[in-house]
Amino acid sequence: MTQYEKLVKLKSRIADLSGAASLLGWDQETYMPKKGGAFRARQLSTLEGLAHEYFTSNEMEQTLHTLSSDSDLSTKQKKNVEITKKDFDKLKKIPNEFVIKQRNQISVCFEKWIEAREKNDFAIYAVELKKLVAFKREEAALLDSSKHPYDTLLEQYEEENTIERLDILFAGVRTRLKPLLDKIKNAEKPNTDFLKVEYKKDAQWAFGIALLNKLGFDFNRGRQDIVVHPFCTSLSPDDTRITTHVNEHNMPSMVWSTIHECGHALYEQGLPSKEYGMPLGQAISLSVHESQSRLWENNICRSLGFWEANWPLVLAHFNDQLQTVKVTDFYKAINTVTPSLVRIEADELTYHFHIMIRYEIEKALIGGEIETEDIPALWNKKYKQYLDIDVPDDLKGCLQDVHWSHGLFGYFPTYSQGSFMAAQWLAFALKQVHSLKNDLEIGNAENLLLWLRENIHQHGKLYTSKQLCEKVTGEPLNFDYFMEYVEAKYSTIYNL
Amino acid sequence: MTQYEKLVKLKSRIADLSGAASLLGWDQETYMPKKGGAFRARQLSTLEGLAHEYFTSNEMEQTLHTLSSDSDLSTKQKKNVEITKKDFDKLKKIPNEFVIKQRNQISVCFEKWIEAREKNDFAIYAVELKKLVAFKREEAALLDSSKHPYDTLLEQYEEENTIERLDILFAGVRTRLKPLLDKIKNAEKPNTDFLKVEYKKDAQWAFGIALLNKLGFDFNRGRQDIVVHPFCTSLSPDDTRITTHVNEHNMPSMVWSTIHECGHALYEQGLPSKEYGMPLGQAISLSVHESQSRLWENNICRSLGFWEANWPLVLAHFNDQLQTVKVTDFYKAINTVTPSLVRIEADELTYHFHIMIRYEIEKALIGGEIETEDIPALWNKKYKQYLDIDVPDDLKGCLQDVHWSHGLFGYFPTYSQGSFMAAQWLAFALKQVHSLKNDLEIGNAENLLLWLRENIHQHGKLYTSKQLCEKVTGEPLNFDYFMEYVEAKYSTIYNL
Repeated sequence: MTQYEKLVKLKSRIADLSGAASLLGWDQETYMPKKGGAFRARQLSTLEGLAHEYFTSNEMEQTLHTLSSDSDLSTKQKKNVEITKKDFDKLKKIPNEFVIKQRNQISVCFEKWIEAREKNDFAIYAVELKKLVAFKREEAALLDSSKHPYDTLLEQYEEENTIERLDILFAGVRTRLKPLLDKIKNAEKPNTDFLKVEYKKDAQWAFGIALLNKLGFDFNRGRQDIVVHPFCTSLSPDDTRITTHVNEHNMPSMVWSTIHECGHALYEQGLPSKEYGMPLGQAISLSVHESQSRLWENNICRSLGFWEANWPLVLAHFNDQLQTVKVTDFYKAINTVTPSLVRIEADELTYHFHIMIRYEIEKALIGGEIETEDIPALWNKKYKQYLDIDVPDDLKGCLQDVHWSHGLFGYFPTYSQGSFMAAQWLAFALKQVHSLKNDLEIGNAENLLLWLRENIHQHGKLYTSKQLCEKVTGEPLNFDYFMEYVEAKYSTIYNL
Repeated sequence: MTQYEKLVKLKSRIADLSGAASLLGWDQETYMPKKGGAFRARQLSTLEGLAHEYFTSNEMEQTLHTLSSDSDLSTKQKKNVEITKKDFDKLKKIPNEFVIKQRNQISVCFEKWIEAREKNDFAIYAVELKKLVAFKREEAALLDSSKHPYDTLLEQYEEENTIERLDILFAGVRTRLKPLLDKIKNAEKPNTDFLKVEYKKDAQWAFGIALLNKLGFDFNRGRQDIVVHPFCTSLSPDDTRITTHVNEHNMPSMVWSTIHECGHALYEQGLPSKEYGMPLGQAISLSVHESQSRLWENNICRSLGFWEANWPLVLAHFNDQLQTVKVTDFYKAINTVTPSLVRIEADELTYHFHIMIRYEIEKALIGGEIETEDIPALWNKKYKQYLDIDVPDDLKGCLQDVHWSHGLFGYFPTYSQGSFMAAQWLAFALKQVHSLKNDLEIGNAENLLLWLRENIHQHGKLYTSKQLCEKVTGEPLNFDYFMEYVEAKYSTIYNL
């Protein structure tokens, strides 16, 4: 066995453990019996612990050491070694006891978040969150004490993210997206009554499945189930699972949640399975992942062409509710822009203000400029400032997201970046594939998927997010594409 | 940490891995997408390999060595150490390369079994089965070269099983059960037409769930799903899953399959969860497990009292099919005795002839008295001899069971032993719990479950099968109880 083959074997074993852990996690949200939680947590912790143990083993260290100076490797093999080495070095910097202590604090913090939500009392949560913030600062210092701690945390979700980069991006949101929002605010709102009537569960489910088939989700290599909070998870290259939720009085929530997770799944299903367990078989970053989910969710499946082409499919499932509705009115209704309190229910314009608020707050928090007890007032101030909306209580305000209770600081910005990136991908796909505009208008998304497979999915982590963007579109992430997309779209919808 | 605590920790980690592997296996049969198999096999093999690695580790060896001479342990702790040491010694005798080679041969053999069934051609399978038999003989020799190899294999499923013991047991089947069967053969057959009409899938499913609730299956610590070949599996003490199948033209198959697996599950749900990962938290043997499933399946749920008490529940689900049927006729129909070709469809009398045939053949095969190519003729001869039935082809004959293709030689006898043991348990439960006869007649199975919990389930492996039988009933497994049960029951049904 060559040293490279040995690395592949070691990494495959870790991937097997991670895949099994993903199934434990999936099952926990879908089918696990009510009282199965305690032993499930043990099993998950054992599997994750073993995966960590193997990744940081002496065997791995020696293999990586030998391979680092191996000049006979192919470009792709070198990239796999380089990224694995980088991950190894990071993992090695965090002592195991620290990981365990932090994980315990996350459990406590998550419980307090639940309790604080039940009692609508942020103070219950603030004390434990403060301790978790201290852990995250320490983690950042362990990884690189020379940098701003938030910069270090940002890197964990998107290697190339920095405060500097994101400040520029969100300045765009403030200076260019805000004026569009203000214009829309004064325009006439579309009628959305027909979206709020009852849509039967079975019909919604069948429609969701039909949509997934249309978009190219491979049911031979994946499945969909129902959960409380939808997600996408991959158990192996041939087993990617998405989940959705169904509320009979909120059909749109099922539809776009299904499509969003489908976008993530199409990326996972497009990664090269021969690189199982290796970086080149994995998604680049959360931003790029989100660029796939939001591309399908918004750019494609909130377009007029998509629904015109698929209107017969809509009526085949929802004739009672929509037979008298014009597809153009449906299109306007599903693109209504309204400042609101809750991020996950936001439209594709106001969404980025929700993200910016979180970005600004967590940056200050990790940077030590504010303390956890300052969050509610700051949160409410910013919602007033950016969205002109009054936050009635913390439940609908700073207690709404689970992320911070899990220690996920630096994660939020990737949601916005993904949307902005999506607009850029689509602009270039339309340039490069001449039939694409017409394809999409007749409801054929196949060529777009092929383009994504070829330009993005098949590479795994061969390129960084920035490199890929430049390779595919000739330039780094550029906010202009998103602005062009939303200005054209919403000027028409709102007669601006 | 004491050495005993260390053992518990080591064994818990193995249990975590086994639990995760069980979930991988359960999911494979229930929800895994079609193409997920190849990576799933890798994940399973990694987890099983790790479990084996930990069980045979130096750390385990040293811990067991220290504990073997530790006189401060409680009786239960001593038993846990003793059994774990025994398992460890066995595992240590089989080299890892042998395990891998044998596992590969099992894969080949299973594929050939599938192919042989498709082509109805035993010869395709015979060659590979012969190699597997050689592996099993070698395995037996590795474990104990001084014994008959079949005795060694029998032990793996029921520690106290020997050829000597089973020959005596099956002599009873031949000399005492056969005459009863012959008498029934000449009696008038009950009408079973109403069992063969259509029973809608949804109604069958709902009835199955209602039955499970009646019998005491804890849905907070388990669930039921639909598969092709029903089974029961435990992912943890708080997560026991059963599966069933539904055929709209074979309602009884769903009902008694559901009850059978429920019997297994009630045992698993009754094992002490504080002994997680330790022998005292595990079922004694396959025989005892089967004694639970068959007790509920046959002794309880093929009794007249059970169906008289639950007749309103039956009609609530199957009014269209059964409203004009008398419960006594239903009772007779579900207890029809007919010699047939297929084991899993056999009634509770002829069933044991199916098992005996397999026992006699595999004993001769492992003992080297016959070769695999002799199986078909011998099979057909024995079906003629014991059940007076002509086997039309190998598909309905010696190709029907999956067991041998998986290397499971010595497993079959536990099915019959379980049935015989069930009759013995019930006889003593009825003696010891005075209300039990009446309880069962009014459809209340709660006191029986309590008796099983107290006398059998709670002990885990504290006693061997033989010890437990003697402790609970005052004597070893005694075929008389089964004969008394079936003679009384079938004499009435068939007016003998």
